[in-house]
Amino acid sequence: MFENKIKITAPFWQQYINLIREEMLPFQWSVLNDEADIKIEKERDADHIPAEKSHAIENFKIAAGISKGKHYGMVFQDSDVYKWLEAVAYALHQHQDDNLQRIADGVVDLLAKAQQSDGYLNTYFTIEAPECRYKRLYQSHELYCAGHFIEAAVGYYSVTKNQKILDIACKLADHIDDVFGSEDGKIHGYDGHEEIELALLRLFELTKNDKYKKLANFFLYERGKNPNFFKEQQKTDPSTKPVIEGMEGFKPEYYQNHKPILEQETAEGHAVRVMYMCTGMAMLARLNNDKKMFEACKRLWKNIVTKRMYITGGIGSTVIGEAFTADYDLPNDTMYCETCASIGMIFFANNMLKLDVDSQYADIMEKALYNTVIDGMALDGKHFFYVNPLEVVPQLSHKDPGKSHVKTVRPAWFGCACCPPNLARLLSSLDEYMYTVKDDVIYSNLYVSNKSDFKINNQVISIEEITDYPWNGKITFKVNSEATFKLGLRIPNWANRYLFKLNGKEFTPKIEKGYAIIDRTWEKGDIVIFDIQIEANFICANPLVREDYGKVAIQRGPIIYCAEGVDNGDNLHLITIDTNKKINEYKDSDTLGNIVKLELEAEKLILDKQWNDILYRNIMEKQENVEIIKLKLIPYFCAFNRGENEMAIWLKTK
Amino acid sequence: MFENKIKITAPFWQQYINLIREEMLPFQWSVLNDEADIKIEKERDADHIPAEKSHAIENFKIAAGISKGKHYGMVFQDSDVYKWLEAVAYALHQHQDDNLQRIADGVVDLLAKAQQSDGYLNTYFTIEAPECRYKRLYQSHELYCAGHFIEAAVGYYSVTKNQKILDIACKLADHIDDVFGSEDGKIHGYDGHEEIELALLRLFELTKNDKYKKLANFFLYERGKNPNFFKEQQKTDPSTKPVIEGMEGFKPEYYQNHKPILEQETAEGHAVRVMYMCTGMAMLARLNNDKKMFEACKRLWKNIVTKRMYITGGIGSTVIGEAFTADYDLPNDTMYCETCASIGMIFFANNMLKLDVDSQYADIMEKALYNTVIDGMALDGKHFFYVNPLEVVPQLSHKDPGKSHVKTVRPAWFGCACCPPNLARLLSSLDEYMYTVKDDVIYSNLYVSNKSDFKINNQVISIEEITDYPWNGKITFKVNSEATFKLGLRIPNWANRYLFKLNGKEFTPKIEKGYAIIDRTWEKGDIVIFDIQIEANFICANPLVREDYGKVAIQRGPIIYCAEGVDNGDNLHLITIDTNKKINEYKDSDTLGNIVKLELEAEKLILDKQWNDILYRNIMEKQENVEIIKLKLIPYFCAFNRGENEMAIWLKTK
Repeated sequence: MFENKIKITAPFWQQYINLIREEMLPFQWSVLNDEADIKIEKERDADHIPAEKSHAIENFKIAAGISKGKHYGMVFQDSDVYKWLEAVAYALHQHQDDNLQRIADGVVDLLAKAQQSDGYLNTYFTIEAPECRYKRLYQSHELYCAGHFIEAAVGYYSVTKNQKILDIACKLADHIDDVFGSEDGKIHGYDGHEEIELALLRLFELTKNDKYKKLANFFLYERGKNPNFFKEQQKTDPSTKPVIEGMEGFKPEYYQNHKPILEQETAEGHAVRVMYMCTGMAMLARLNNDKKMFEACKRLWKNIVTKRMYITGGIGSTVIGEAFTADYDLPNDTMYCETCASIGMIFFANNMLKLDVDSQYADIMEKALYNTVIDGMALDGKHFFYVNPLEVVPQLSHKDPGKSHVKTVRPAWFGCACCPPNLARLLSSLDEYMYTVKDDVIYSNLYVSNKSDFKINNQVISIEEITDYPWNGKITFKVNSEATFKLGLRIPNWANRYLFKLNGKEFTPKIEKGYAIIDRTWEKGDIVIFDIQIEANFICANPLVREDYGKVAIQRGPIIYCAEGVDNGDNLHLITIDTNKKINEYKDSDTLGNIVKLELEAEKLILDKQWNDILYRNIMEKQENVEIIKLKLIPYFCAFNRGENEMAIWLKTK
Repeated sequence: MFENKIKITAPFWQQYINLIREEMLPFQWSVLNDEADIKIEKERDADHIPAEKSHAIENFKIAAGISKGKHYGMVFQDSDVYKWLEAVAYALHQHQDDNLQRIADGVVDLLAKAQQSDGYLNTYFTIEAPECRYKRLYQSHELYCAGHFIEAAVGYYSVTKNQKILDIACKLADHIDDVFGSEDGKIHGYDGHEEIELALLRLFELTKNDKYKKLANFFLYERGKNPNFFKEQQKTDPSTKPVIEGMEGFKPEYYQNHKPILEQETAEGHAVRVMYMCTGMAMLARLNNDKKMFEACKRLWKNIVTKRMYITGGIGSTVIGEAFTADYDLPNDTMYCETCASIGMIFFANNMLKLDVDSQYADIMEKALYNTVIDGMALDGKHFFYVNPLEVVPQLSHKDPGKSHVKTVRPAWFGCACCPPNLARLLSSLDEYMYTVKDDVIYSNLYVSNKSDFKINNQVISIEEITDYPWNGKITFKVNSEATFKLGLRIPNWANRYLFKLNGKEFTPKIEKGYAIIDRTWEKGDIVIFDIQIEANFICANPLVREDYGKVAIQRGPIIYCAEGVDNGDNLHLITIDTNKKINEYKDSDTLGNIVKLELEAEKLILDKQWNDILYRNIMEKQENVEIIKLKLIPYFCAFNRGENEMAIWLKTK
């Protein structure tokens, strides 16, 4: 991690990074300690069952023998602490904060005490059911939590060089290796929720200990060999009480163990799990030079991005199991589109880029980042979505139980705090996603103003990038070192018109897999300008997407736009767009921040009294009266910030 | 009941009535006795949880002390026997069958033995939990089952004069009156599932015992006075195990006790319950001349038919709670539209007609009958739908858990046999819905060939009706008696052009509340012809129905038509209709029976290779290639009879 020194200077992203460091992390620390004064959502939000309190730190104190009491919260409550710790690591990397580091070091000390002598680390099973250790893997999240801890340890060690956390992680990973594997006497199984695989590979990358890579390889290849593994394990479970009630009916697809990974042709089941699995697969393909695994990654990637992904980069078409459903099944009003699933998609994309620098991966990374991921957080940094809908009608969220998971405004927090800390760790480590450095090429995946030092062939190359992206497509790179290397600039898949200039002179670079490659012996002060004309366009979906047929969405640069009721009145479905009309754009600065808004002449049906108390009528009797409106569109990620109102991304067209 | 002798001669309906007598009732009898060789659906179908066997008759034997064992099945399993018994009564009324009557008399003898000495009759609580009697009314279905028994008793006594069944019913009703009521010491409560109210009023109409009417009045007016009644009662329940697991989270709206009945402005909660409540309300309004209750009936009626009813007469927009949701929320692919709910709507409509002969009630009765109700049964009489969808895409029913309740073909039977026997009792007593006789007017609500004798002012009036309705709109009435009375002929709300002839001469009758009133001193042999030009029309929905906006349905007479994949290929959503095109009709006779089919020139998008592996694209790059197709439409109730395939009622229009 952090092999290159990348300093983000873009106000757009600095604002998020600062909100996380200044607001989210201290707030979450108070939540983990049950000191936060928050109204926890009482409503059941799918399997994110809210709780009255977190109790997460207290659970560790009990497991460590420092406090007395019972475990409280979800079986995977520990992972809240780990994700917080990982986010803290990246925040410290961005900005040193001694007080925050002191708190985090204290947590590491506590975890060391909570770890069992054999290396096992899990508060639920340590406190409540030691006899059930690893015996209920379909729901236990033991390896999932271990994976999140290992990720936190890799991150925290990389930034702070805290040896203690790395020791805990290695002891835990060694313990898991003692218990799981293909050898006789070991468990030939894996966790219901993937995560340990990618975590072990991160630990391998840090420690170079081959054992961790082998164990990850075992977990990935073992998965799905026996689709009845969980069912058979359940029969031997000494406890009859389920770990998570009401969630036992899921089929093997939910856990991605319906068939061996290399045979999985489509993305099935719980979307976050699929993404963590795919991330692990892509890492393993690279680290083991495993061609078959790489083919499997490409197969799942293609299935998702060509048949199962929303225009916002959201994935998961149903709340039931928070899961994928079928090809082209992308309902806009009942979907799940969990923030964490799109974050997982970014993990997957980033690792595909490391395998194969192809702009298709970075395009999706950008799409997910600018739309579903940052939609997951309110502009105040204090309210969060799990579910990122493409269409909201408030009265239906309130009255149709099939849409009760679709919140109309972002709630303050959730008892099961899964998405907010995941957001925190992604955005705080955004520098790890902006570039892929391979051999002598610096590939720029995401356009974000920054000042950076790259290490290539023992040269340190300083580059400064200046841009007002995503609002403006002019991107300037200043090379501040004399060196020989290639600069690869991603040409976004939405870009229609663009030009390149080197020191003021236009040129045509060669294009490789969607990247413009500028191969040059650079001089200090060289300036490359990549100038993309960003304009708003109408986008249509594959006609097999039933819900979008006859509709268009509007995209400008990487940003998907939407209409809100507060700007356009209720009943957004009565608006019809003529795609021959020009989309006007203007910079605006109000409660939504400093953004580009769009405006477009459109028609809206007037609901007149002919329809009073009439539900159905012969078309011969119908009159159509429409009014011409100025349709106002805002970036999707800015929606839901002005109170409860209607929202729609896809609008009817003529 | 059966005050007039109405003999249905229409082949369309005789076919259903015969299927019920010859196939359904014997088959169901074998199911109730666990002798049927059927594959019971294993999948969970909302709260109709399938069982391995019925055990219903055995439960009564155990309660009667004849057999030993435990209760098996749903808490409301008894009602399967009662609904069967009621259907048998009407079948015997249609067609005497000594063997069937002997079997039914035997059931009555068994019920007499199962009834407790105080009059209580319920196998679950008698066998399993006598200490919980009437203590878990939100789920116990005790009064619901009692109501179904009383209805069966009223029907069976009316047809067979079996005194024993009437005695059991009165003893049961007297017992309920001892336990429930406003007096001190009685339970100030009601059943979670309405049914007892209408049943008591039917018993009152038969026996003229005022006590039963008063008790029904109590139940209806008590409902919703205290919205916490069920919650409070649960606290005193001696058992902690719920009667029906997984169904405890429902709000008072589910049970229609969120507010007093007179204050309920909208239809809320479980649709079948609402319909049974409304039926009881309409009966009470008439029998007590209760004007406020009549206004409450009209309010709920209007809310349903102008804001919450599908074009098929289906109700219940969500599977969760099988319930109403919000005004204009009528999704076509996730709805419930339970067969029983539309049957309940017919009960409600029929009782509204008895209160106020207004064709709007009969129009809805006809709509529900010809569409959702008979859609509930396959053309073979052996397969049944609970859920009657308006749009089916088989792979989504299989892969989207939010649509798993939407079956693609009618299953053979259900462990909880709710809808099939309800269908049997409605269709076997269809003669009770065809006419409303009030003072000296014979109102014809439904046009069905029949030969009938009506009693008016001590005259017996014989009328023969001959028609090929619903395929042909020519309806001939032959009056075979000399008498003075008025004939009221409903002018269907879909009828645009029609004429009346008396003995060959055209005339213009006066119209009262949608009925043409022919007031005359009739001579034997008088012939009235009501000739409606039935033609296929395009129907559109109120623009507030989001799911139907920009779409049309096709209706011919009372019949709603649909397109199936087997005729039109998959991806029905790619079809676009031009409503200026002529709809051709033709009589056809194939596996779907002797029906009128429709054909229409339409466009269908050609899915070409431009969309291979592309999910979203800039509209500028899109080409639209359409083919002209002959769109084939069949009556909705005939759909789902040719194997699994797509189906749609609402089709896109230009």
